[in-house]
Amino acid sequence: MAVRTVAWADGRLDVVDQTALPELRRTTLSTVDEVVDAVRQMVVRGAPALGVVGGYAVALAAQAAADRPEGCRLATVRADAERVAAARPTAVNLRRGVDRVLVAASAGPAAALAAAHALAEENVAACRELSVRGARLLRELCGPAPLRLHTHCNAGALACVEWGSALGVVRELHAAGGVAMVVVDETRPLLQGARITATELAGLGVDHRVVVDGAGAGLIARGFVDAVVVGADRVAANGDVANKVGTYPLALAAARTGIPFVVAAPESTLDRSTPDGSAIEVEERDGDEVLVLGGRRTAPTGTAAWNPAFDLTPADLVTAVVTERRVIRPSAGERL
Amino acid sequence: MAVRTVAWADGRLDVVDQTALPELRRTTLSTVDEVVDAVRQMVVRGAPALGVVGGYAVALAAQAAADRPEGCRLATVRADAERVAAARPTAVNLRRGVDRVLVAASAGPAAALAAAHALAEENVAACRELSVRGARLLRELCGPAPLRLHTHCNAGALACVEWGSALGVVRELHAAGGVAMVVVDETRPLLQGARITATELAGLGVDHRVVVDGAGAGLIARGFVDAVVVGADRVAANGDVANKVGTYPLALAAARTGIPFVVAAPESTLDRSTPDGSAIEVEERDGDEVLVLGGRRTAPTGTAAWNPAFDLTPADLVTAVVTERRVIRPSAGERL
Repeated sequence: MAVRTVAWADGRLDVVDQTALPELRRTTLSTVDEVVDAVRQMVVRGAPALGVVGGYAVALAAQAAADRPEGCRLATVRADAERVAAARPTAVNLRRGVDRVLVAASAGPAAALAAAHALAEENVAACRELSVRGARLLRELCGPAPLRLHTHCNAGALACVEWGSALGVVRELHAAGGVAMVVVDETRPLLQGARITATELAGLGVDHRVVVDGAGAGLIARGFVDAVVVGADRVAANGDVANKVGTYPLALAAARTGIPFVVAAPESTLDRSTPDGSAIEVEERDGDEVLVLGGRRTAPTGTAAWNPAFDLTPADLVTAVVTERRVIRPSAGERL
Repeated sequence: MAVRTVAWADGRLDVVDQTALPELRRTTLSTVDEVVDAVRQMVVRGAPALGVVGGYAVALAAQAAADRPEGCRLATVRADAERVAAARPTAVNLRRGVDRVLVAASAGPAAALAAAHALAEENVAACRELSVRGARLLRELCGPAPLRLHTHCNAGALACVEWGSALGVVRELHAAGGVAMVVVDETRPLLQGARITATELAGLGVDHRVVVDGAGAGLIARGFVDAVVVGADRVAANGDVANKVGTYPLALAAARTGIPFVVAAPESTLDRSTPDGSAIEVEERDGDEVLVLGGRRTAPTGTAAWNPAFDLTPADLVTAVVTERRVIRPSAGERL
């Protein structure tokens, strides 16, 4: 079995610290508070991985509440679960993972843990299946020549648990010799593209180039890219997609240039209860993520930043959403 | 008179080192080699300023060649001039400034210097005039309420000589209470937005927020911006615009959202001899500008970068190009 980004070991969560990459460092989360901090600081990130972490956090909460008086056990677990689910608002997977394991937790900590494990296994299987489906779709859309792909942020093994979504598609294509090159947006402010996606692609032996986020649209327009493939934090019922800030301009450029814009995400990222993108809360993060680089301020003191963590790509720009079960074509009017 | 980014003093060029900003540090360029290095390393940058620096560089060359045998004097100046003009290929102003002063240089160093001075004065006057015209245009396009503007990179006093182009428009509007806020793209890789534009806006007392480059398009789509106003490195005959990489996605988002995309640039940036954007050479710069941040590599060793310094915005997305003489409306089919 491959190394897992998120694993359960000796009654605690063992995760890859994604803020330290490209340096590989694991860290242990023993309490719900530690999980909440790790989620907020993006030690663990990526919509599918957040779902699994949310599940395991409830298992941790159930374990910790076991010595409480029986009458208040479940209320304590519920309060902990809510704190975890609220730690980041945009990716729907987090709350979903929490909710699912919370149902099991009423039968005690062992049942909660079993539900969390099941969630992790399903996540891994879903990403493998959607990768196969996504690779097949890109072949249909772009033809048989090795493809020049463009991705944003990180929708790889580290964002998921063991096998990526968008990068899972790349990996699947690459295994069949189908990838010529991947353009990787560095993805400011936290550089998930340069730090994480480039690390995964280097590990897989996939030829790739890191570009600044402003360069992506222009390279697409100049004909250097055959298809854009990204992950998602939430897909609304009408096919609008919330993903890491900087995704939307790639979709605009892809549509204008006439290349496919493909979203690869497990069904757990699809949210029929959100009618469209305008109903998705876009997380605003601390301005220092933008203004402090390598310990130094980039702008004068007195200058403030504005740091939305996501943007919304409207359905009409989304060629396809690929999941482990199906291909949905929002730009052709298909809904979830 | 305001402080000049590029000034002539005691037979040498005295310039603001734009790589050190927000720290204000001036540096002296005494030889053509020093000018070429400064232009390549973007110690001096900004299309209008490059034109003036190109002119003064030829004055330096003429001064240095004065003790050469008469027969080879002009050939030496010409060779030096060509090195300066070729130091950066995209902004047309650099070669134009060089060529203009080179004509005067045939009459000797004093004539060359007088021509360079004249070029600098014209530049300052042109930017002031186009700022007034640009502010009036934005009023016409957007109405009387204070505007929320969006800019990319730096088209301010430091990019010009004493008075900006796009930021000159902002300054002019601000003086009449017409600016609510300016969204400033940080402008990776060299952060001219965070380091230079924010410094200028803070100095002018204009409310502003720095955002990562990926965030601009999404903020426009969400209705937070009334108009985009940027400078240019070259405008082709059909109205296609070359400007700092990351400009094109703002134009895409502005067109889709239905807000004006305005380019403010002196006539010296307009190039009728370039038929359209496809004829403009896009400078590729060193990948380390992308991959090394604050002395540390962001990506694993083995990962390469791709670093185009500019992108091309097609004419149909350009609401207006404002110069010191006129307003051209490329999206309405007007040509230079």
